[in-house]
Parts: sequence; C-alpha cells; structure tokens
Amino acid sequence: MREETDLAASRSGRGPEHDVDPIDVPGFVEAIVGAIDVRDVEALRGLVADLHETDLARLLEALPASERPRMIELLGSDFDFTALTELDETVRVQILQELSTQTVVEGLRDLDSDDAVYILEDLDEAEKQEILAQLPIPERATLQRSLDFPEESAGRRMQTEFIALPPFWTVGQALDYIGETDGLPEVFFEVFVVNPTFRLSGSVPLDRLLRTKRGVKIGEVVTADRHVVNVTDDQEDVARVFERYNLISAPVVDEAGRLVGVLTVDDIVDVIQEEADEDLKALGGVAGDEELSDSFWYIARSRFTWLFLNLIAANLASFVISMFEDELQKMVALAVLMPIVASQGGNAGTQTMTVAVRALATRELRTSNAGRIIARELLVGLFNGVVFAVIMAVVVFARFGVADLGFVIALAMIINLVAAALGGILIPLTLNRFKIDPAVSSGPFVTTITDVVGFFAFLGIASLWFQT
Amino acid sequence: MREETDLAASRSGRGPEHDVDPIDVPGFVEAIVGAIDVRDVEALRGLVADLHETDLARLLEALPASERPRMIELLGSDFDFTALTELDETVRVQILQELSTQTVVEGLRDLDSDDAVYILEDLDEAEKQEILAQLPIPERATLQRSLDFPEESAGRRMQTEFIALPPFWTVGQALDYIGETDGLPEVFFEVFVVNPTFRLSGSVPLDRLLRTKRGVKIGEVVTADRHVVNVTDDQEDVARVFERYNLISAPVVDEAGRLVGVLTVDDIVDVIQEEADEDLKALGGVAGDEELSDSFWYIARSRFTWLFLNLIAANLASFVISMFEDELQKMVALAVLMPIVASQGGNAGTQTMTVAVRALATRELRTSNAGRIIARELLVGLFNGVVFAVIMAVVVFARFGVADLGFVIALAMIINLVAAALGGILIPLTLNRFKIDPAVSSGPFVTTITDVVGFFAFLGIASLWFQT
Repeated sequence: MREETDLAASRSGRGPEHDVDPIDVPGFVEAIVGAIDVRDVEALRGLVADLHETDLARLLEALPASERPRMIELLGSDFDFTALTELDETVRVQILQELSTQTVVEGLRDLDSDDAVYILEDLDEAEKQEILAQLPIPERATLQRSLDFPEESAGRRMQTEFIALPPFWTVGQALDYIGETDGLPEVFFEVFVVNPTFRLSGSVPLDRLLRTKRGVKIGEVVTADRHVVNVTDDQEDVARVFERYNLISAPVVDEAGRLVGVLTVDDIVDVIQEEADEDLKALGGVAGDEELSDSFWYIARSRFTWLFLNLIAANLASFVISMFEDELQKMVALAVLMPIVASQGGNAGTQTMTVAVRALATRELRTSNAGRIIARELLVGLFNGVVFAVIMAVVVFARFGVADLGFVIALAMIINLVAAALGGILIPLTLNRFKIDPAVSSGPFVTTITDVVGFFAFLGIASLWFQT
Repeated sequence: MREETDLAASRSGRGPEHDVDPIDVPGFVEAIVGAIDVRDVEALRGLVADLHETDLARLLEALPASERPRMIELLGSDFDFTALTELDETVRVQILQELSTQTVVEGLRDLDSDDAVYILEDLDEAEKQEILAQLPIPERATLQRSLDFPEESAGRRMQTEFIALPPFWTVGQALDYIGETDGLPEVFFEVFVVNPTFRLSGSVPLDRLLRTKRGVKIGEVVTADRHVVNVTDDQEDVARVFERYNLISAPVVDEAGRLVGVLTVDDIVDVIQEEADEDLKALGGVAGDEELSDSFWYIARSRFTWLFLNLIAANLASFVISMFEDELQKMVALAVLMPIVASQGGNAGTQTMTVAVRALATRELRTSNAGRIIARELLVGLFNGVVFAVIMAVVVFARFGVADLGFVIALAMIINLVAAALGGILIPLTLNRFKIDPAVSSGPFVTTITDVVGFFAFLGIASLWFQT
C-alpha cells in the first residue's frame, strides 16, 4: 500500500521527501543518460515515472545540454511540460529552441494558461508566433491575450481557468456543477460570482460553500473581494498585497471590471522569491537575472559592467588622494592609515543602505516615516563615529606615538561615518523618488561618497593640522 | 451595494485596495489618537471597524507607544488579536508587556493555535506561564506542546486545527460532517485520512472531494502526501519544499507518524520573506532581526559589532601597507594607486560571495555542482582581472608616464581578482560545511582577503620591481 510506504518513511525518521532527493542518488543521472543514448524509452519512462515536475526540471538541468531535448522527445506525451516552468530561463530557452515545434505545441496544450504563457514569454517573437499558429484558435486567443499584457504584470501571471457563477444559483446547483463538469481548473480555492456581463461581484471560498445549506442562493453567501487585482498591476505590487493580507488567491479584472483570471499564492511565492533574489543580488553588484546555470561568458560580461563603474569610482578616490601627494611624501603614516577611514565609512554606509533598500522594497519605508529613519541613522552614524574615533585615536597613538595623528583620524572617522549614514539613506530615497531601482544603483554612489569623503577628510585635516 | 462599490473602484482605474491605504489617509492616525485620549469607544470602534488585521497592525505601529495598549484595552473584544502577529517583534513585545494578563488571555482564546504560539513565543518564560495558567486546560495543553518544539521548527509554525477522517467514511459522510460541524478550522484546503491510532495515511484536496460521487469511500480517493513534514523540521527547509513543489498545505506528523498539525502556504510566505530578509541584511552587515521600528540604541549596538570586526580587518590591511613604508616614501604614486587594486578586489569578491551565499540558501549550490561553479568563478575572475589589468595599465601610463608602474598594477589586479573569486566562493562553501551561516560570516573574511592580497600584491611587486 502506497500510504504505508510513505508513513514508514516518516516513522523511521527519514523525514520528508526533501531528505531523499531522487536526483542526488548516485548513478541516477548516469542511468538516464544511458537510457537516452540507447533510445530505451521503456527504461526512461520507468526512471522518471515517479518524479515530481520540479525534480524532472532538476534532472534536466543536471543533464548535458544536448541530452535535454532528446529526453523530452523520447518521453513524448509522458513528459509533463509543467517541468519547463521550473527551469532556469537559460536552460528553458535552450531546450525550447531545439525541440520540434510539434512537440512544443502538444506539450503546451496540456498546461494551464499561466504555465503556457510562462514558457512562451521568453521566446523571441518569430518562435512564439510559429507555436501559437499551430494551437487551436480558442487556446491561441487566450495565450495571445495574456502575452499582450506587459511583462511582469498580473495579466501575464494569472490563470485564465476559473469557476464563475451567477448569483441566483443555489449552493446545491454550484456543488453539482463543480462535481459534474469536466475541464474545470486543476486546483481552485474559491468560486467567483459574476453578473451577466461578467463583472465581478465577489467570491465564495470552497470551505464556505461546503458549510452552507444546499438551498441557499450563492448571492447570499458571496463576499466582495477586498483585494481585486487589475490585469496591468505589477507582479511585485500584487505579491506585497498577497503577503500583507495572507491571500491564497485573488481575482484579476480588466479595465471594465470584468473577471478575466485568477492569481494563486503558489505563483506569488515564486514572485516573492524572485524579487528578494533580485534585490539581494543587486546589492552585491550582480545582475538580478544571473542564474547558477549561466555560462562563463554571460556572467563575465554582466559582472564586468558593475566592476567598471566601481573602477571609475576608485579612480576618483585615487584622484582625491593625489591632491595630497606632498603630505603623503612628508608623512608616510598617512598612507598607512587612510584606507581604515575609507573602509569603515564604506561598511557603515552599506549597512544603512541595505536597511533602506530593503525597507523601500517591502514598502515599510514611506514618506510618513522617512524623517524619523533619517534622524535615527544620523544618530547611529554619529554615535558609532565617536566610538570608533576614540578607539582609533588610541590605536594610532600607541602605534605611531603622535597624539596629533590620533586626533586627525578621530575627526575624519566621525565625519565619514556621518557622511556614510546620510549617503546610505538619502541615496536610496532619492533614487526611489526618481523611479530608479535603489537596489541596483545605490551601491556605487554610496561607496564613492564614503571613499571620497574618507580620503578627503583624513588627508585634508592632516594637511591643515600639520601645516602650521 | 457593497459589491458595486468595489467594482466601481477597479473600473475607475483606482486599482486594488493597496492603492487606497487607510493608514496613510491624512488625519486618520490623529483621529484615532483623539478618540483614545477622550476614551470615546464608539468613535474608535467606528474608525477601526473596516480595517483588515494587517492594517490594524500598521495602525498600531503608527501610534505613539503609550497609546497602543490603551487602544487595545478600549476596543476590548472588538480588537482582533490576529493583528499582533503582523507587528514587528519589538512592538509586539512592548504591547504584550503593558496589556493586562486578562486581556491577553481573552484575545488568545479567539485565535488559531499557530497565531497564539507566534504571539506567546517571544515573551519571557514567566510571562508566558502566567498567561498559559489562565487558559482552559485543552487550549493550554495544545499551546504548551507547540511551544515545547524548537524555535523556528515546523511544530512552532503549524496549526493544530485540521479535519481528520477514517478511510471507511464515504465522501457524502465527509461532506455532511464538514457542512454540519462547528469549530472546524477557519480555512482549510484538504482533509486528512488517518488510521485509528491517528497515523496519517494521506489527504484529499477539497476540490477532489467535491468532484467525487457521494457514495465513494474516502479511502479510495486518498493520495499519500508526497511531502510530509516532521514537527522538528526547520522552517527554512519546510519553506524550500513548499516553494519547490508549489504546495498549498502539508500535514505535520510526530516521530511516530501521527498527524499533529497542518502547515499552510500563507505562513510559509512569511518564512520565505523572513529568510530572504535575513540573508540580504546579513550580507550588508546588518543583524537579521533588525527592524525598522527598532530603537536607536539597539541598532547602534548591533551595527557596532560588525563594524568592529571590519576595523580589525582594516587594521590588518593597514599593517600590510606599513611593511612597505620605504617604497611608499620613495614613490608616492604607490599610495595613490593602491586603493584601486584593493577596491576592485573587494567588489569582485562580493559579487562571487553574493551568488554563492544565495545559491547555498536556495540549495541550488550542492556538492554535486560545486566543482563546476568554482571553476567558472575562477575563470570569470581571471578574465575580468586581465581586462581591468589592461585598462589600468593604460590609465596609469597616461597619468604617471611610467610604463613599469602600469605593469605592476596590471599584475596585482590579476592576482587580486583571482584571489577574490577564490575567496568569494570557497569561504561560503567552507563556512556552510562547518554549519556556520555563510550569509552572516562570509563578508569580513572575503574583504580581509581582498584588502590584504590587494595591498600586498601591489606594494610587494612594486618593491621587487623597482628595487633592481
């Protein structure tokens, strides 16, 4: 009995499925490659039969690139195209380009509309049209309409399969309809109530439907959805609403208020993950779409851009240093100490910037509380500036025996940590105001400020102080 | 008609609810404070009546600290304690400490077990016990059991309200039971099937239940859950499974395989968000639990720790520089140029580290592909090292007219970018191997390496080159 097996697994402490990862079983990938090479369809089917679509995707990624389309063609209708939605974009596009159009068309027909759109949207226009042309007209029209919405909009992510009922039906009629109709969405959590022109008036969750007497009219148990999504809403904004209000699914309406689709939380989980991923990478100076499976060449070029910007910033800082060549010549200790001031500033600025960028992304930092946060960051910068000023004054005196040098580094440290705090919060806020993604662009500005201010303050104060 | 209003909103292009944020309406917070101050309960009730629990939480955060518990006490049973789960921890603990135990006990009784545990777990042991002691025994026992599981485990996050049925019931019996029983979970997506000793044998999703003939036995439509969670599983691991396999809910079992709770995706969304948040902050040198509402003093101290580590690293780099005081004295251009080499290395190292840390967190980077990724990062480092070496050689020659100096900086640049790539990938991998969170600890190591190698390579090569 299948249930018993599963139970035995958890009883024996092996834990959930993720502990026994089929793809990581030694020899599994090799067995797949072997079966593909001898075109042993039976063996191949047996090996992948129990794989979840996600594991099927991970298997594809683990295969050599040339074997991927071959495996799909061999499996034919036994290959679940949903797996393609779980692939890194690079791998997905590569596979789609090598598969025959016939295979892609047949694979797409089995999918929910949101998955089909997700697979199609990365292809170039010609390939997309070639595939769409071979789909039956109703399916083609649905997909085409979703593809006409902007990228990363709710219209692209929504599923166009849903259950919509008129308010005068009874709960019993609704339950019978659900029970007896074929072709309903694979998974659904609520039924929607629409008027004759398909304008949305609300929804009834499945569990409420079950707990209502059969004779009651749907119109009496419907609740207006508090969170209706517009087709053109950005997926990131939609994700925030799902997250904030713990939604499981939400209706999507067009400009006329007509129900056109539904968004479910499992798609939103991917959006949340993607957006967090992009911010995290952007702050580290990496392109948001860089994936682990990307080629050396793609990554080298994309990282180059950011490093090149940094090189310009570093040369600017170097130019500031060169303004004080005479002082450096006279007192080599300045050269030894100056990177400490710049480095502390850079790190303090990054701390503030990280918090600001994240709070902007989660919409926690708003106009109403920006003043308070700026003031707090300034205070933190001043406080830590003073503490590190004292520490470095002592260290420098102990190391070089020159009290004046300790005073100079202390003053420069305070100035740079305050500048870091200001830059760290004001730069993301300003970029955000001008609709520039603060996660992507704040870093170079902040470090340029802390480098330039750090070197200039330290060497400038030293040159004034020791001149007299 | 309420539906029409909602519809009108989307028709007129105002979009979903998040565009008309009640908390941001000018004068709203002031009106609340006014009502609290004159103890006008009726006015207060009217103002908050339509707020979603999440907006109620945001209102609490917008109020002065002293008004928060006063508002809750005034609202009495009209205040939905679920709102407390949406607060920043600092604010939640402050409120709970000021509320009377009586109010907290009554508020908790209305909640699902997972929400009650979430609120209780941050309190100190004495407060927790005081509250638990006043709860009725069955509720107390349930909460106590959840609280006995480790922090951040599935047992803490799970809801203990679920529907469990024997396999010999018919679908009709199940539907009638759901329709007629009070006290069932507020929202559920599947019913579970258990044997007489409450061992889990599988589940039936609600939609499948609806589409099956009433006479069919539950045991015939049950599917074994492929993803059973153990109570002691870490919430981050559980979140990965939900995300990877697009789960909506999953059963939680104890060591004996007995069903003890259910985890739903809305809780998991918060976990995903939290974990991404922690990694992002950690990479920026900020404590994972730092929240926008934290006090100046808490933040100053928590940021200090990281900056202090950085200060030690910066002093180490400064020590390396001081080994070359003679060379710096003889050729001040070295002091002007050395930060460029260190800075490029630091940024390249951060890029690699960011990608590695994220890939480890999402479990994309595994033993099986680590070799390939290390090789690729090395190649990228070497490639960008050579490109920036050529650029800087030209810049330095143009600026100082000394070809030899260009050669020295070029060589140092290549060495440091390769070191950055190696450090950026090997340090996170090593920390991860020793079960140390790479997001928190990689940064200081990586920048220390790139600073030390950068200064040492540049000044060292210069000293060898110009000695002869």
